[in-house]
Order: sequence, then structure tokens, then C-alpha cells
Amino acid sequence: MSFFTLHVAGVTRHLPVRQISDTLSIASFVILGDAELVVHAAAALKKKLPEADYLLTAEAKGIPLVQELSRIMGMKRYFVARKSIKPYMAEPFVTEVRSMTTQKKQILCLDRAEAGLIRDRRILIIDDVISTGESIQALELLVREAGGQVAGRAAILAEGQAAERSDIIYLEKLPVFPVAD
Amino acid sequence: MSFFTLHVAGVTRHLPVRQISDTLSIASFVILGDAELVVHAAAALKKKLPEADYLLTAEAKGIPLVQELSRIMGMKRYFVARKSIKPYMAEPFVTEVRSMTTQKKQILCLDRAEAGLIRDRRILIIDDVISTGESIQALELLVREAGGQVAGRAAILAEGQAAERSDIIYLEKLPVFPVAD
Repeated sequence: MSFFTLHVAGVTRHLPVRQISDTLSIASFVILGDAELVVHAAAALKKKLPEADYLLTAEAKGIPLVQELSRIMGMKRYFVARKSIKPYMAEPFVTEVRSMTTQKKQILCLDRAEAGLIRDRRILIIDDVISTGESIQALELLVREAGGQVAGRAAILAEGQAAERSDIIYLEKLPVFPVAD
Repeated sequence: MSFFTLHVAGVTRHLPVRQISDTLSIASFVILGDAELVVHAAAALKKKLPEADYLLTAEAKGIPLVQELSRIMGMKRYFVARKSIKPYMAEPFVTEVRSMTTQKKQILCLDRAEAGLIRDRRILIIDDVISTGESIQALELLVREAGGQVAGRAAILAEGQAAERSDIIYLEKLPVFPVAD
């Protein structure tokens, strides 16, 4: 297996590079479990973020990052959009999106009480990696449907062409690796 | 709707009480999104925890708590057992369990590299709430199958009869509410 050496926010990780299609390999970046990287990346991201009322992410990989960012930014609450309706949602608030890449329908949901807190508030969308942009786009739709304003879109890494976007905030670029014939 | 007022680790929350069967109502405790409660509960739990090499939880509700506990305990890494095999798992390490209550089969999995780190190590199992004990039991099986030792089982709350267990660590009891005929 080959590895890509990532330097981000003062920490170094050797990411395994894996082929995901006939033409492309990607480096696997997993923050779930990496307490050290989350703490350092949150501190570095905080300096780049615009003002906002709440942070929002999608389960599950973004959760440690929004917890740590909320803590250091003094925010008592954040929101995690779930990928299925959960028993704790007294009344679910559901956004349906169709993946451009897989054509599958996916839902993102919150409890309606959470959606009510988003209304008329500035929401910062957070993810571990922005790649195709589909996850971020689905979260934006959720914010708009709940009546909130998107204050910004931020991630630790921007993968592939996402690094060319001027409307996202990120710490480092993550290359993709074309597969030779 | 009725509410149960919970005091835990210096914070107060009003938990909605919801009927889940003909005979039982429970109070809904959700730490996902509650940055303030996670920070306070982690600080209080830390004082009660035995020594261990790593923390382990199951996705998704335990994630913010293990991130914060790992941070304040100076642990660089923790483990999150996933409920399905994920693309980042080069080689999945899977434990299969059958729910006693629903009879459904469920899997808990890690990447094999993570399972390798658990081998011969002391693992502390963490959850938000211990209720029937099934989640904790499934995580214990995962630890044993990976060759690790269970150093302890800890949660913020012990719900219903779980509060009578002497083999778990928790901050507060969460009552259950029998439904009157």
C-alpha cells in the first residue's frame, strides 16, 4: 500500500492511498478516533471562521470536530444532521437530497425543535473533508429549509478540485491520485 | 408533553418524557449537539475512571464524549465502533451481535488496524446512557474478540435497572416511567 504524508495544523499523518475506481485513487483521511488531530485542527480553523450563531455538521465523521470547535468558541450548542430519523426526534425535520454521483436518495434530518433554533440564525457548516461538495450542499439545503442563513462552509481539508473553490474555508489541500493505465 | 428535570455535572436539562411501549415511558437524553453538557460530564466522569490505554464507544451518540474525555485525559487516540462497514476500512474487523429486545442482528466494526491497537490493551467502554446494557455488552464482545481487556464501563447516566449494576461507572440515575392503565 502507498501512503500520502499529510501535514496539517502542526500534526503529521500518513494516509493510506486506495483505489476507488478504474481511474482514481484517494488518500483516506479519518478524524474519528484521532483526538489529537481534532484538537489541533479545531484551534487552527477557529482563526479562519466568520462569526456565526451555531455550527452544523452531518453524522458521523464531523461530530468530534464540531464538539471541539463549539467548546473553544464558547458555543453551548451545535447541530448534527442525522442520515435517518431517530427515536429522539419527537417530530423529525427532513431534507431529501439525491446524490449526483450515486443517484441514490438520501435524507438529512434534525428534530423540529433543533430546526426551530436554526431559523433566522447564522449557521456555519462544518465537515472533515470537502470533496465533491455534495455533503456540504445537502447541509446548505437543510439550513435554508429551516429558515437559517449559511454563514460559511469550512473543513479541515479540501480534496481534489474542491481546493479551487473560493467559497469554502479549509486548512490544507488533499490531492487525488489518477490511476495510470 | 411532560418533562423530567435532570441535574448532572452542574448542568440542568429538561428531558421530554415519551411513551415507547404500552407500559413504559422514558426520558429522552441527547448529548449530540450539547457541547456544554459534554464538557461538564467529561470533567466529572474523568475523576471516576480507572486507568486505561484507550477509550471505545459506538457511533454516533458517544462520539462527542470520547473526544472530550480523550482530550482531557491526554489520550491521542480513541476508537469508534461503526454500525456498518465503511469505505475507510481497508480490512474490516466485525463483531456480530443479536439484540435481545429486537431480535435483530447488528454488527459493530472497526478497521483491522484499529483492532490491532486494542490487542493486549486496557480498554474503557464509554456510552452516553447505559440502559438495557446491550450496547455495552456488544462493545465488550468487540474488545474481547480483538484481544483486549475491558478496563471498565462508564456512562453519563444509568437508566432504569442499570442503576443497580455494580460493574458500571456513572454520574446520575435516569428513572423510567411506568405507564398507568
